[in-house]
Amino acid sequence: MRIERGCAKGFALIFIDACFKKPTPTAPVWLMRQAGRYLAEYRLTRAKAKNFIDFCRRSDLAAEATLQPIDILGVDAAIIFSDILVVPLEMGMKVEFAEGRGPVLPDPIRTRADINRLLSVAADTLEYVYDALKIVRRNLAADKALIGFAGSPWTLATYMIEGGGSKNYAIVKKMAYSDPALLHMILQKLSDVIGDYLLRQIDAGANAVQIFDSWGGALEKSAFFEFGWSYMKQIVSRIKMERADIPVILFGKGAGGYLEEIDGDFDVFSADWNTPLERAKKVLFDRYALQGNMEPARMYDKAAIEIGVREAARVMGGENGYIFNLGHGMQPDFNRGNAKFLVDFVHQIFAR
Amino acid sequence: MRIERGCAKGFALIFIDACFKKPTPTAPVWLMRQAGRYLAEYRLTRAKAKNFIDFCRRSDLAAEATLQPIDILGVDAAIIFSDILVVPLEMGMKVEFAEGRGPVLPDPIRTRADINRLLSVAADTLEYVYDALKIVRRNLAADKALIGFAGSPWTLATYMIEGGGSKNYAIVKKMAYSDPALLHMILQKLSDVIGDYLLRQIDAGANAVQIFDSWGGALEKSAFFEFGWSYMKQIVSRIKMERADIPVILFGKGAGGYLEEIDGDFDVFSADWNTPLERAKKVLFDRYALQGNMEPARMYDKAAIEIGVREAARVMGGENGYIFNLGHGMQPDFNRGNAKFLVDFVHQIFAR
Repeated sequence: MRIERGCAKGFALIFIDACFKKPTPTAPVWLMRQAGRYLAEYRLTRAKAKNFIDFCRRSDLAAEATLQPIDILGVDAAIIFSDILVVPLEMGMKVEFAEGRGPVLPDPIRTRADINRLLSVAADTLEYVYDALKIVRRNLAADKALIGFAGSPWTLATYMIEGGGSKNYAIVKKMAYSDPALLHMILQKLSDVIGDYLLRQIDAGANAVQIFDSWGGALEKSAFFEFGWSYMKQIVSRIKMERADIPVILFGKGAGGYLEEIDGDFDVFSADWNTPLERAKKVLFDRYALQGNMEPARMYDKAAIEIGVREAARVMGGENGYIFNLGHGMQPDFNRGNAKFLVDFVHQIFAR
Repeated sequence: MRIERGCAKGFALIFIDACFKKPTPTAPVWLMRQAGRYLAEYRLTRAKAKNFIDFCRRSDLAAEATLQPIDILGVDAAIIFSDILVVPLEMGMKVEFAEGRGPVLPDPIRTRADINRLLSVAADTLEYVYDALKIVRRNLAADKALIGFAGSPWTLATYMIEGGGSKNYAIVKKMAYSDPALLHMILQKLSDVIGDYLLRQIDAGANAVQIFDSWGGALEKSAFFEFGWSYMKQIVSRIKMERADIPVILFGKGAGGYLEEIDGDFDVFSADWNTPLERAKKVLFDRYALQGNMEPARMYDKAAIEIGVREAARVMGGENGYIFNLGHGMQPDFNRGNAKFLVDFVHQIFAR
């Protein structure tokens, strides 16, 4: 199935229309990490897998988890259930997911020899993700979009070099400032793989793709553009060259201070909750659609949700090119009733 | 000893002059967490104490640690060695510092009854900090400034409510959105204590005070100003009412996205490394002196230090009202030779 640019054949994908700044009957909405532990259905699906990596590799289970929030919440887009770390995993790295703490990569990348051992054909091994996308697209209502995704080169590189999550990014930053050529080698290899991976996701049925840059905000401005954003742009250019009909969304956690210099051939800027929507609109909306960015902690309280949605509507209501989302992911202790309330409330408040 | 506004009697405090935007022969420089584990001398002093809390409470040892970077690095200001968590500690909370991990507050504050149990007279108990300040001021060269400090109410509240460091600030944010009155009670009680504490530090010889807001950046803009900045401003106003001659520095980690709305009666805005100095200058320099903000990871490499200092000089060289510092604290694995190199290089590059 092919979606024409901004105009799905025979049915309305309001999510895609919003990405291309076309008029929509209301603001489309989905929630980052909408397939997650806050849903009992997700936990049941998860329990069918041997472990988290098995869960990611089981296309049937990944598809099941992907579809749950569509049925339960009524969001306008499904995002394929997976993890950004399947890329280093299939590049040949050991990745351990232990319950209740962050991922661990026990053999981190530190030398040129380490980089050379990484498999550049990882996108071929990620067949299970493409299979999951195919299952989802077959089972997804025609008016719902399917989003593919990947982590950004910088974000993946931090995990691969630090050996897991990090507080100060000491090792990867030390590399950035004392051996930048080595870091660039890693980032380039990752960018090539991620480009392959996202194009293959599109071939498998993704109607849009999002790149998650979770840790770019750890970098000062010059480094943010040198080691972070430039590789995001490179991937976007490659996708756009082959598939201009597919919207590309960039999520930059911590990019709020650098908005003025943000550029590239992508379609939608997804703002974190530290980036005032008003400022993002002022700086970026003439060139990009906007997605975001309610403070996730508002999910704890219905009155707080109402205020958050109304604030977004004050800024973006009536504009073409706005997708409601959170400024970061859903958390395990969030309430599904509040999530459903949010989705309905967005559709109602932004209706025209 | 009293320092007149911007003009120390009989000797030059270039740090204080810079705070008040007066001409200085070069840019003053000090480094956040300059008294720290990267110095062998610090580790020796630390070893004389029974534990970290004992270290903070031993005025003689705290004074010793405070003075070390002055002798070793030649910085222009000493900052009293202590920890922001001595405030909750002396308000009656249990605070545990375990080597190699963050602090733990095993009995966190969650209810109005918890708040009522907190001692509002904590500033009286912090006599050991004032004693350390007195010892340092007696032993500090006349041309070196002594900085007192405290954590911001929001930052202390996050530790006190979460029970330690936090990734998502789920508990304190849940309180912010579902019971804001309770959070405001805590913040007001903390502000009163912190105001007392800083005024007492000034009485004991601090020539300037800095408030560290480490976690304000976790908040969306409206919450940042409601729960964070407003209490910083309140404390500043109180200090300025009593001691207009003492410069007040505010450090706001993660405040870079909110610069346009920053206000208050303080003197120096200390920028983190995510806040481009050029943007801080454009938005704030007509009202405030600036401090900061080299990316700390540049400390790993002399060439990277040179580039960082030259970049700061490109923006702030020749201006009155600039204090060189890092955008965050010194880390245990930093190199003292590089730190000394940095201080000398700043003095040289900014000399006029």
